[in-house]
Amino acid sequence: MATDVLRELLDRNDVAGMQRWLAERQPYEVADELGRQDPITAVLLFRLLDKDRALTVFEELDPVDQQHVLSGLRDQAFHDLVEAMDPDDRARLLGEAPAKFAQRVLAGLSLRERQMTADLLGYPEGSVGRYMSPEVVPLRQGLTASQALGSVRAKGADAETVYTLPVVDDHRRLQGVVTLRRLVLSPPDRQVTELVTADTPHAYATDDAESAARLMQQANLLALPVVDSENRVVGLLTIDDAVELIEAADTEDIARQSATTPWPGHYMAASVTQLARSRVVWLLLLIVAATLTVNVLQIFETTLAEVTALALFIPLLVGTGGNAGSQAATAAVRALAVGEVRTGDVLRVAWRECRVGLLLGAMLAVVGLLIGALLVDFPVAVTVALSVVVICSWAAVVGAAMPLLAKRIGIDPAVVSAPLVTTLVDATGLIIYFLIARAVLGV
Amino acid sequence: MATDVLRELLDRNDVAGMQRWLAERQPYEVADELGRQDPITAVLLFRLLDKDRALTVFEELDPVDQQHVLSGLRDQAFHDLVEAMDPDDRARLLGEAPAKFAQRVLAGLSLRERQMTADLLGYPEGSVGRYMSPEVVPLRQGLTASQALGSVRAKGADAETVYTLPVVDDHRRLQGVVTLRRLVLSPPDRQVTELVTADTPHAYATDDAESAARLMQQANLLALPVVDSENRVVGLLTIDDAVELIEAADTEDIARQSATTPWPGHYMAASVTQLARSRVVWLLLLIVAATLTVNVLQIFETTLAEVTALALFIPLLVGTGGNAGSQAATAAVRALAVGEVRTGDVLRVAWRECRVGLLLGAMLAVVGLLIGALLVDFPVAVTVALSVVVICSWAAVVGAAMPLLAKRIGIDPAVVSAPLVTTLVDATGLIIYFLIARAVLGV
Repeated sequence: MATDVLRELLDRNDVAGMQRWLAERQPYEVADELGRQDPITAVLLFRLLDKDRALTVFEELDPVDQQHVLSGLRDQAFHDLVEAMDPDDRARLLGEAPAKFAQRVLAGLSLRERQMTADLLGYPEGSVGRYMSPEVVPLRQGLTASQALGSVRAKGADAETVYTLPVVDDHRRLQGVVTLRRLVLSPPDRQVTELVTADTPHAYATDDAESAARLMQQANLLALPVVDSENRVVGLLTIDDAVELIEAADTEDIARQSATTPWPGHYMAASVTQLARSRVVWLLLLIVAATLTVNVLQIFETTLAEVTALALFIPLLVGTGGNAGSQAATAAVRALAVGEVRTGDVLRVAWRECRVGLLLGAMLAVVGLLIGALLVDFPVAVTVALSVVVICSWAAVVGAAMPLLAKRIGIDPAVVSAPLVTTLVDATGLIIYFLIARAVLGV
Repeated sequence: MATDVLRELLDRNDVAGMQRWLAERQPYEVADELGRQDPITAVLLFRLLDKDRALTVFEELDPVDQQHVLSGLRDQAFHDLVEAMDPDDRARLLGEAPAKFAQRVLAGLSLRERQMTADLLGYPEGSVGRYMSPEVVPLRQGLTASQALGSVRAKGADAETVYTLPVVDDHRRLQGVVTLRRLVLSPPDRQVTELVTADTPHAYATDDAESAARLMQQANLLALPVVDSENRVVGLLTIDDAVELIEAADTEDIARQSATTPWPGHYMAASVTQLARSRVVWLLLLIVAATLTVNVLQIFETTLAEVTALALFIPLLVGTGGNAGSQAATAAVRALAVGEVRTGDVLRVAWRECRVGLLLGAMLAVVGLLIGALLVDFPVAVTVALSVVVICSWAAVVGAAMPLLAKRIGIDPAVVSAPLVTTLVDATGLIIYFLIARAVLGV
């Protein structure tokens, strides 16, 4: 496999072999392998690349890896790479870099590139302005298709994309977009204004980047025009950046839902302490929250002492409640993320999940009854079965409602999902269990 | 909000109001709202659309919603829509439709469209062939840039995209791709072969569609040429379909990781029984697996009876082990999905997770010691603390290793992740707890 071959070459310090290996791979494959290595090895490999491939590979690296690689280069190579970067990639690199590094980058840039970068960095973190490309080819209203194509030929060399062309008035205000496809396929004397898509989606530079990216995906756009507060075109958000934004957002959501602080780097490049640090905060919070369960059990200690068999089913009930709550929470968080559910739906969702929980609980209660009756006795079995029904319904409602309520008050729903829901359901589920036990068993 | 306004219009049966509402929205917004409605309302709304917008809205719908809408149309409208669809969208619609519906669709198609659809459906489910568009503009080697543009103008009207153009030899075998950007920006007499990107990524029609989509994302491609076994160009996989593929795959993964059978439809459109059905199988499996925990506790019943305080910490330990295992499993499954980890990494990953678990366990053990000492006594606290350390390490190793081992033997890693890992760790964690208790407390 690729990594094994590379690992062998590195162990043997076979420089010629490494160069051959690098030359045979596509740029994105090289970037992928570099991302899996520790920083020093990544720099070593990068410096073995052919000069004409170095930039292409560099552009495919994550900002974190770009930083590592740049830190290992001498001034000339450093500044050549940085100058040649697209301004939006450079802004992203600097946005996540320490101050000294950022200064070194900016110091070596030409005036034009430094200005573009400073403009982009002026936008708030996480906004469209930080991800868009300012290098666009705006077309003036009143051009014909062939004049427009001439414009594209004249100015298109540096543009991030020429497939989506914003059409502007004399003050650079957005009037619509025309696609290169339409320009090419239309008769040359057709007016551009006839080819423009009416009511094109667009975003403000200060809008949230992730929402803009999901909008692009929903509307099947290759690029989204970006305007300032006076509707003047300032850039384009392209599909490749939108896709990366969505993938990063999904990875973050998934991390949060499993009680992990999102780790922005490559999984294999994380050290033991970095991984531990991304998980410890949540684990500590949850174990402290779990003290609730200890307290609940202390309150019911006499009941437990009278019917010790009740203790046998604690993990089963706590686990089932956790699973049911986790299912509901995960579905709700995902539906929120892809836009299938809105915070206003919370009552409808809670009512529906309550019925789902009852239905599921009823089916599981049969199993619970069987397990209880076979392993202990009938009264305990009834207690377990009834508890399963109530706990499942309760867990489903809490699981689905909490993410929606969280989003309503401005908290990231992924944070308030499976792990928190499970812990809450654990404690309350135990209370439900013992109250039912007291009622059924008369203790 | 949008839905509230629409809901009111529907309740009042305000047809003119609904038509106005529909006319004011972008096609993808209309499609989004239709997807949130039940099938009958969706058909009603669809039939209120202007004829010229109907197709655009229809193309934005999910295959499930497309089926609902079509089922509510009369023959003429039905066949007009179906004939106008892109062949890849039609193949996707039919792939998930019942046989009678599929027959009705195929019966009304023109010969050319029926042939294209039959070709696409001939590919295995989940393969690139089912998602690609066969409507491409291949360019013959030996053309100049301006001749190539002429070709695009002549044949490009029906093509799915003209931005990525496959270059072929006399036998239609793929030689490379050229982008429309390069054609437009180059001097007219430049040979196309000089503009071709060497070693372009491509896929076989029988390759896995999700892998091809992730490849496109990694390599920043707008379209991926697809070839048959003899390297002849048969279609292009475009970025919009790739992005949908990835979103669907991620949603499936997320569902499986929370013990849910993936539900392909819109979250809000699912009925109570449909939601329950997507969750019950796993819940039943897990509650049956949880019987293990009951058995384990029965084995140690005497120990429990001697030191009843041990029962107080069962939910806390089981919960902490579940959280630690779930963190590791979720990170591993996500890293596998985005290609940052490969199955061959399992030993490296397991060793790293073991150390992470020890480190986390040590930190949590301090908290466990405090809780135990404050609420019960010191010997029990030591038992809890030691158990936390061992359980965390064990959970982290199991959590990360199981998905990788599953993938190695061909099982979807998302299926063997958090829910299964948690249940396994519950039972083994209890064994660890009681063995430590016997050693420390001398029971």
